[in-house]
Amino acid sequence: MAYIAVDLGGTNIRAARCAEDGRILARAQTPTRPEEGVEAVIARIIGAIEAVWTDEEPVEAIGVGAPGPLDPQTGVVLTAPNLGWENVPLADRLRERFRVPCFVGNDANLAALGEWKYGAGRGHEHLVYLTISTGIGGGVITHGVLLEGAHGLGAELGHIVLEAREGPRCGCGRTGCLEALASGTAIARMAREAWARGEPVPWPDPSAVTAADVAEAATQGDPVAAVIMDRAAFYLGVGIASFWHIFNPTLIILGGGVMKTGDWFLEKIRAYARDRAMTSDYITPIVRAALGDDVGVLGALAYAQMRLPLSKAL
Amino acid sequence: MAYIAVDLGGTNIRAARCAEDGRILARAQTPTRPEEGVEAVIARIIGAIEAVWTDEEPVEAIGVGAPGPLDPQTGVVLTAPNLGWENVPLADRLRERFRVPCFVGNDANLAALGEWKYGAGRGHEHLVYLTISTGIGGGVITHGVLLEGAHGLGAELGHIVLEAREGPRCGCGRTGCLEALASGTAIARMAREAWARGEPVPWPDPSAVTAADVAEAATQGDPVAAVIMDRAAFYLGVGIASFWHIFNPTLIILGGGVMKTGDWFLEKIRAYARDRAMTSDYITPIVRAALGDDVGVLGALAYAQMRLPLSKAL
Repeated sequence: MAYIAVDLGGTNIRAARCAEDGRILARAQTPTRPEEGVEAVIARIIGAIEAVWTDEEPVEAIGVGAPGPLDPQTGVVLTAPNLGWENVPLADRLRERFRVPCFVGNDANLAALGEWKYGAGRGHEHLVYLTISTGIGGGVITHGVLLEGAHGLGAELGHIVLEAREGPRCGCGRTGCLEALASGTAIARMAREAWARGEPVPWPDPSAVTAADVAEAATQGDPVAAVIMDRAAFYLGVGIASFWHIFNPTLIILGGGVMKTGDWFLEKIRAYARDRAMTSDYITPIVRAALGDDVGVLGALAYAQMRLPLSKAL
Repeated sequence: MAYIAVDLGGTNIRAARCAEDGRILARAQTPTRPEEGVEAVIARIIGAIEAVWTDEEPVEAIGVGAPGPLDPQTGVVLTAPNLGWENVPLADRLRERFRVPCFVGNDANLAALGEWKYGAGRGHEHLVYLTISTGIGGGVITHGVLLEGAHGLGAELGHIVLEAREGPRCGCGRTGCLEALASGTAIARMAREAWARGEPVPWPDPSAVTAADVAEAATQGDPVAAVIMDRAAFYLGVGIASFWHIFNPTLIILGGGVMKTGDWFLEKIRAYARDRAMTSDYITPIVRAALGDDVGVLGALAYAQMRLPLSKAL
């Protein structure tokens, strides 16, 4: 029995044929090119699936991780700003073409599920996953259940508020969210703000500075960059302490581009989190994600494996 | 089949014999008097249970809601500052005496469970409950599961951080928690601070002012009290928006003494929460708790009903 797993991102579409135990048997990848429109992207998803499809063993189901918000029950992508999509019935389209069950879930939730089943979170029934990248996405396993919420909109952990009264504007339109304080976008914004304040920044063109530039400069010892990365680590730590108090998990997993920064950054996050824990009973390991670029497809696999028996029981 | 439900509070012990459907068939109440020591309190719990016990129908189980932190698996109260307890094996003590299964859970979690099964939350598989009193306690039902966390320490919703950098000291020892910004204790502290700043407060002795005094003065139109209550409503609203993003529930239930304030206060909380929701899809009704003083025993009943079949399955 095989599964097809699809990771639909703003830049790339990855598809894989997977075995029940998580082995990836075949892979395909193609650029997303969302600017070419919904139909062109769906055609490329179908093409990537066809490239890994086999007629030699039955395909049980297709799992797809997609940018949200989306409705996991119907598999409709409601709005995906990165793709320019609105109300796209992705699960129905793939079911019509391939005639197997198809399940579409939020990419960050599925990443948490993938790390739980196949990565850093194996054996944990309570874990919190954060992907710290352009934005901050979250996923939660609590009591062995993927927390999706009533309408699939839950686990938006990047949008807990940490500075209620005087926080910076967030991409979501509100202010003071974790994402506005510690994401790659926030790190780059803090670098531009430092430059605007006249601080001696090490970047020739501060308007084009990226979080990776800031992280690299901090690693090299630049004091302005170090203060910015320390600020991001502080807010990640305070956010993690809140998640400890809310979920009492046994593990925190951190992924995403910002976590490619050296171990000193992870150590800072751990120290700030421990400092804000109510008691030492809440403190758990805070570890890096383990699945790398495969997290999307392995999360989609795990999601199809989770949903399929439930859908048969209905 | 009957259940015994016990609500162990810092002031009173309430016990009830309940039917499977939530009807309370007999009640007993006695002062807790924690200053008399652990054994005296346990003796009074046993006395209250004996007062409602019947030999006419079998008792299935005893459920107890107790102040945390405690270990729901073993029924040991780890530390309860209100009671002066440390490592008290409450479930074992009651099991020895009454020879029926006994389950001990965190009082705020059980209150959420009680409101879900018998109160304002009936029919909701995803809800968040807050009790706003001296402190702020929380309880969460997500995907039809009571969120207790790996070691029973979860759903401490009063200890999410809303002012990470410059928040007031919390009872938990950290700073900027929701509890430090919007509990009854926080409201009274803000009144004392307003007095210390020389604002024209309406209370003759500001050192003894209570949250109820501030709420009453605000209801009567006092401007200083109105600003304080507005501040508390603001933080409750921002916290609720964070819970919407985390849990995507279909209902928020608010209980506790501070919520005895008039509807204008609830309306303010609703407005601030709506204002901080990422999108209107997250917005749900925010309603008052329905069970009043019975929430403790009905929560303990619901907890015994939840745990009993699971314990038999082991």
